[in-house]
Amino acid sequence: MQYTISNKMKDLEGSAIRAVLKMTQSKDLITFAAGVPAPETLPAQFIADKTEEILAKNPALALQYGVTDGYAPLVASLTARMQAMGADMENNGVMVTSGGQQVIDLTARCLLNEGDVVAVEAPTFIGGLNTFRSYNAKCIGVALEQDGIDLNALEDLCKKQKVKLLYTIPTFHNPMGVTMNETKRRALLKLADRYDFMILEDNPYGELRFAGEDVPVIKSMDTNGRVIYAGTLSKVIAPGLRVGWAAAPRPVLDKMIVAKQVVDVHTTMLSQIVADAFIHSEGYDAHIAQCRALYGKKCKRMMECIDAFFPAQATHTSPEGGLFLWCDLNDGRDTRALLEKAVASGVAYIPGYTFMTDITKPTSTLRLNYSIPSIEEIEKGIEILGGVFKA
Amino acid sequence: MQYTISNKMKDLEGSAIRAVLKMTQSKDLITFAAGVPAPETLPAQFIADKTEEILAKNPALALQYGVTDGYAPLVASLTARMQAMGADMENNGVMVTSGGQQVIDLTARCLLNEGDVVAVEAPTFIGGLNTFRSYNAKCIGVALEQDGIDLNALEDLCKKQKVKLLYTIPTFHNPMGVTMNETKRRALLKLADRYDFMILEDNPYGELRFAGEDVPVIKSMDTNGRVIYAGTLSKVIAPGLRVGWAAAPRPVLDKMIVAKQVVDVHTTMLSQIVADAFIHSEGYDAHIAQCRALYGKKCKRMMECIDAFFPAQATHTSPEGGLFLWCDLNDGRDTRALLEKAVASGVAYIPGYTFMTDITKPTSTLRLNYSIPSIEEIEKGIEILGGVFKA
Repeated sequence: MQYTISNKMKDLEGSAIRAVLKMTQSKDLITFAAGVPAPETLPAQFIADKTEEILAKNPALALQYGVTDGYAPLVASLTARMQAMGADMENNGVMVTSGGQQVIDLTARCLLNEGDVVAVEAPTFIGGLNTFRSYNAKCIGVALEQDGIDLNALEDLCKKQKVKLLYTIPTFHNPMGVTMNETKRRALLKLADRYDFMILEDNPYGELRFAGEDVPVIKSMDTNGRVIYAGTLSKVIAPGLRVGWAAAPRPVLDKMIVAKQVVDVHTTMLSQIVADAFIHSEGYDAHIAQCRALYGKKCKRMMECIDAFFPAQATHTSPEGGLFLWCDLNDGRDTRALLEKAVASGVAYIPGYTFMTDITKPTSTLRLNYSIPSIEEIEKGIEILGGVFKA
Repeated sequence: MQYTISNKMKDLEGSAIRAVLKMTQSKDLITFAAGVPAPETLPAQFIADKTEEILAKNPALALQYGVTDGYAPLVASLTARMQAMGADMENNGVMVTSGGQQVIDLTARCLLNEGDVVAVEAPTFIGGLNTFRSYNAKCIGVALEQDGIDLNALEDLCKKQKVKLLYTIPTFHNPMGVTMNETKRRALLKLADRYDFMILEDNPYGELRFAGEDVPVIKSMDTNGRVIYAGTLSKVIAPGLRVGWAAAPRPVLDKMIVAKQVVDVHTTMLSQIVADAFIHSEGYDAHIAQCRALYGKKCKRMMECIDAFFPAQATHTSPEGGLFLWCDLNDGRDTRALLEKAVASGVAYIPGYTFMTDITKPTSTLRLNYSIPSIEEIEKGIEILGGVFKA
């Protein structure tokens, strides 16, 4: 039988990253391909103890249906957190989502018609790209510089086409690891006013700063209600819990809640209750400090090894936080083709093409994750990779 | 600021049922408005013990990202379960979803273009209706009879308009409690072949039979790959876990997996692992037997009380399983207007209009849930409701 798939889904392919992960998961590899917290930071014991306590005290709360906008104490905690970051929580609200990915999906569902233009950083997170594609939106890449998106290029685009939404990961960018500076953030909001577009600020890594000074979130400067903020606890607690949140202007958030009703009714209750307990626990600040110190140390060592072992013309970003750095071999070779050799030599990475709006173009870039490998694996793996790239 | 909401979402309202639940939740009411398992059946201790065990043994499995199509042992268990129900699992596959609701959403996303016609039973589950509406599909109601959908009316519709998808809850229907007989199921599939439409078989209550004989699922008769089956563990374990599944022809399922990647990446891992352990546990059969016996007893008592206390011309369905029965006062009055009086008298129900494709029309019907109230609450509540309806 021939199936007629909807226009929006018929050409959408699965995430190229997930394909790379599948190709590499069964082998005994040093992997720089991941995008997850270090296993040694996962608060397993806390989650086990808290789950037992919740199920003994109030099993129905954890096991029956919950309200769509989220477990009320968690909504309150996340609202307070947004307030602490400087967001105007009188004119914005918070809803809990099933991971940060769902904020992207609900935003797209509520704002985008087929054919609408979404401006994205080039490169950008493939999960964002694919979500917009799944609504038949048109993703247009705007170059990402060391201090954030190229605003001139963005304005040029706005002059030529009606941009409906800008998708940005301004802090410790995935995949590049760079951070948009405060001046650019303010200028971006002015551009949004001038050309009447909305901004989706995706900030999964913001808490994981290990160097430099905090930059305020764009949402904190959003006086006109143009910013939808996507937060997640995946990188600071555990991705498997699937708990994220949206902070958005009330009229938009209310529509997103209606959308979530038909998508998955509500987010897993146990995950929400445990997550709320964890961010209020005595150990939370120490946990974050541990993650920051660990990732800072691993990132530093990775950069030293790249400088020592990669070809001389290769360059890399210098992240001040987050999970990733970005390399460019600057030699015209395609890192997609080189991946097979790297895997055969025992090392995995994510080739740069997976983060592009046009995945058919060759690119000499790659994303490296430093949260998962140990210091020893970083040293050994980067040396091996340097050998592959020099060959 | 004025926000431009997408065409598909701008007119969608939140679930009228959730509005009723909100109106009734803070009050001290006997509620027949719920749609959840009896709290005394929730396996809280099992979940607590299993969670502790999993987090001690393999925390990374439970807390890091998982694959989109689901935790492999659970996928295998659900595949075996579909096979045991007679489904052809050589040509179909299974994916785990975040509740049964997500199967409806992913089906709509992968199959429907804006303006496509979805035939639905009238009345039907509002979560289905709202999902289809959120894709700008056109929902057309087809009368539901005591033995399932009116096939003549469905064929008339197919002759007039191209039907893309039929959405049905054939077993212990929500809200009516009726079951489609086997003859109709087979005839429905023939109709699907003749008029080339797909069938979404939503079966949340199938395991909860307390009277009569099992009827095979439509999926077991699906030789041509026309049926997408939506299953859930919400009604047999706990809704708060958010674990459901889709069983569908491979080409459609593969697209649904791509869609799930952009929607929520994957379903909460702990929920999946715990659910898999529970359905394989020694106590599972006894747990299902307990649910069946309990709901059968409560349903019987509710029917007796309706017969004793409701106005003489009122009628009700006689479910052989599931969580709901359906009453018609047959007196031209609107149960939406009567709800306020009922709540003032201490009893809540769901008025029939919430299940209709046109929610503006008055209807003298209502849905009553018997899983949540105790026998004493059923006796007292139905007597009070009878008084309200007789007044």
